[in-house]
Amino acid sequence: MPVTTIEWCTDHIRMIDQTRLPDDLVHLEIKDLEVLGEAITSLRVRGAPAIGIAGAFGILLGTRMFTGDDHARFFALLEKTAQYLNGTRPTAVNLSWATRRMLLAANRHRSEPVRKIQELLEEEALRIWEEDREICRRLGRHGAELLRDGATVLTHCNTGALATADYGTALGVVFSAHEQGKKVSVYADETRPLLQGARLNTWELMNEGIEVTLICDNTAAFVMQQKRIDCVILGADRIAANGDTANKIGTYSVAVIAEKHGVPFYVAAPFSTIDFSLSNGSQIPIEERAAEEVTEGFGRRTAAPGTKVYSPAFDVTPADLITAIITEEGVVQPPFDLNLKTARPASSE
Amino acid sequence: MPVTTIEWCTDHIRMIDQTRLPDDLVHLEIKDLEVLGEAITSLRVRGAPAIGIAGAFGILLGTRMFTGDDHARFFALLEKTAQYLNGTRPTAVNLSWATRRMLLAANRHRSEPVRKIQELLEEEALRIWEEDREICRRLGRHGAELLRDGATVLTHCNTGALATADYGTALGVVFSAHEQGKKVSVYADETRPLLQGARLNTWELMNEGIEVTLICDNTAAFVMQQKRIDCVILGADRIAANGDTANKIGTYSVAVIAEKHGVPFYVAAPFSTIDFSLSNGSQIPIEERAAEEVTEGFGRRTAAPGTKVYSPAFDVTPADLITAIITEEGVVQPPFDLNLKTARPASSE
Repeated sequence: MPVTTIEWCTDHIRMIDQTRLPDDLVHLEIKDLEVLGEAITSLRVRGAPAIGIAGAFGILLGTRMFTGDDHARFFALLEKTAQYLNGTRPTAVNLSWATRRMLLAANRHRSEPVRKIQELLEEEALRIWEEDREICRRLGRHGAELLRDGATVLTHCNTGALATADYGTALGVVFSAHEQGKKVSVYADETRPLLQGARLNTWELMNEGIEVTLICDNTAAFVMQQKRIDCVILGADRIAANGDTANKIGTYSVAVIAEKHGVPFYVAAPFSTIDFSLSNGSQIPIEERAAEEVTEGFGRRTAAPGTKVYSPAFDVTPADLITAIITEEGVVQPPFDLNLKTARPASSE
Repeated sequence: MPVTTIEWCTDHIRMIDQTRLPDDLVHLEIKDLEVLGEAITSLRVRGAPAIGIAGAFGILLGTRMFTGDDHARFFALLEKTAQYLNGTRPTAVNLSWATRRMLLAANRHRSEPVRKIQELLEEEALRIWEEDREICRRLGRHGAELLRDGATVLTHCNTGALATADYGTALGVVFSAHEQGKKVSVYADETRPLLQGARLNTWELMNEGIEVTLICDNTAAFVMQQKRIDCVILGADRIAANGDTANKIGTYSVAVIAEKHGVPFYVAAPFSTIDFSLSNGSQIPIEERAAEEVTEGFGRRTAAPGTKVYSPAFDVTPADLITAIITEEGVVQPPFDLNLKTARPASSE
């Protein structure tokens, strides 16, 4: 059973500090909004669905100490909390998706006393968490149908339990196939600079008894040239209405080499990751990360002092390189601009 | 003026310990063949031309203490020394190229007293070193003609002064264009697992006042998508007669993404790197490196304990992805099977 990454415990968030893995499995108990903000920015919690959940729980942290029944002040605090949380990671749409959903829930009950709205917000946040668990399992089952017994999957970045409430998107597909009794093995890109593939995928897969081989990012093309890979499955931080997909830096590189080798390239993501307000990927903002993550990421300086670094956190893969998008509603085939709209569940609108 | 990487000092090798860069510029003084063997295996000296020179100097280390005039015993020692050195890095052809050239020189003077042969071997090794300096400068000048003023070059692994006697192959092209007064800038792939691009290229280029931006290997595709790159120039560890090129792992990946973006992909290498005995790249042996270089390369463990790793040191780029091969005899265009033979200097046969 995959690990529980993040959960709400009456008055605080309990979550795994993913920067400490795989050396130490440490849980953080977070009661304060700014502590959560730091945890999101520094990737103690990461993965688009998981930070969506963190955003929903963050709304609770930011508003739960409010007392009295001044609706104007309460809603102002709610807005401010949402804005603060949305700014902690600009690329992932799940954060703003979750905070917007919390605001909508509050607005629907605007006539209730503030105390009641606070209770309803807690219910909504727990619903988001519970839905993620259920959505990931549905997504996993749909995706598993794409995997034959004996398949070898290439992954990039972590999209397992640690990226969600407790199951995973792209890795959830692998878990699901494994649960169905299929033998599935994984090549995991280490995923520089922060090595989520090396640190997190190897740990999650070995915990489940699934065979995993770690490779450097630059080795994926060679491994495909050797015909070791049946398909690529990876996650998304934001998908535009036409299917263009922002995901961890290096995703676009994997897409290009998969195309060259005729290897199917699947994106696995819940509908909460799809931003129908953007017609294509050129409008997705791309975060840049600090140079030190590249030049001294792991306890040792690895470049000359003063080295200029370009470290975008994400890249955008054009829809035409994507074979299909695996969602909780099924496997969506191209053309994505049409088929994503058709498959979209009413609840995500 | 680029640094002197390796040189012969009367009775020993003086060379930079490249594993200590960029933190410390430490010179090793090596008098013993086994110490040299360890230095080659653990990449204290690396880069195809530089380890060719190390091989030639290694022959001196292995045979210089021989006394007496027993030709049979001397030539047996010479053979044994060459075999030992050839085995320290199986992929790079320059090692066996250099040791074979030393053996041929000894054989040409077989009738001389052993003492005289020892002197002639020292002359031959110094000639190999001096020729490398001259060859790299010629290669650099030929390659520089491909670079317009203002060009931006993507590099993978280190192919500068540190990979040769003192100037470089692919980076020698950049140095040469810079010396001609052209403004050239470089994006350097960090080159996992041993980070030669991050540690060595940034250091060499900044020493020369050439603008360099470090990127993770997985970012090269995104940088090309953004049209930041005019051409790729990188080195080779062994080139087959048809142009198929073994080079640092990740080279093939760069070749595929360069093709996708219409970016010219140049290999820069002296004729000593071309193995005319191999008709194509499938016959080139590929070294595998230790798992720990991937899982604990940065001074900290970065994958779950017991993680299985696949870490080939090299990959093979098919000739059809290579725009041209820059050599000391000029820029060789496809078809390489024909044109490499034509351009081949008599001295390299």
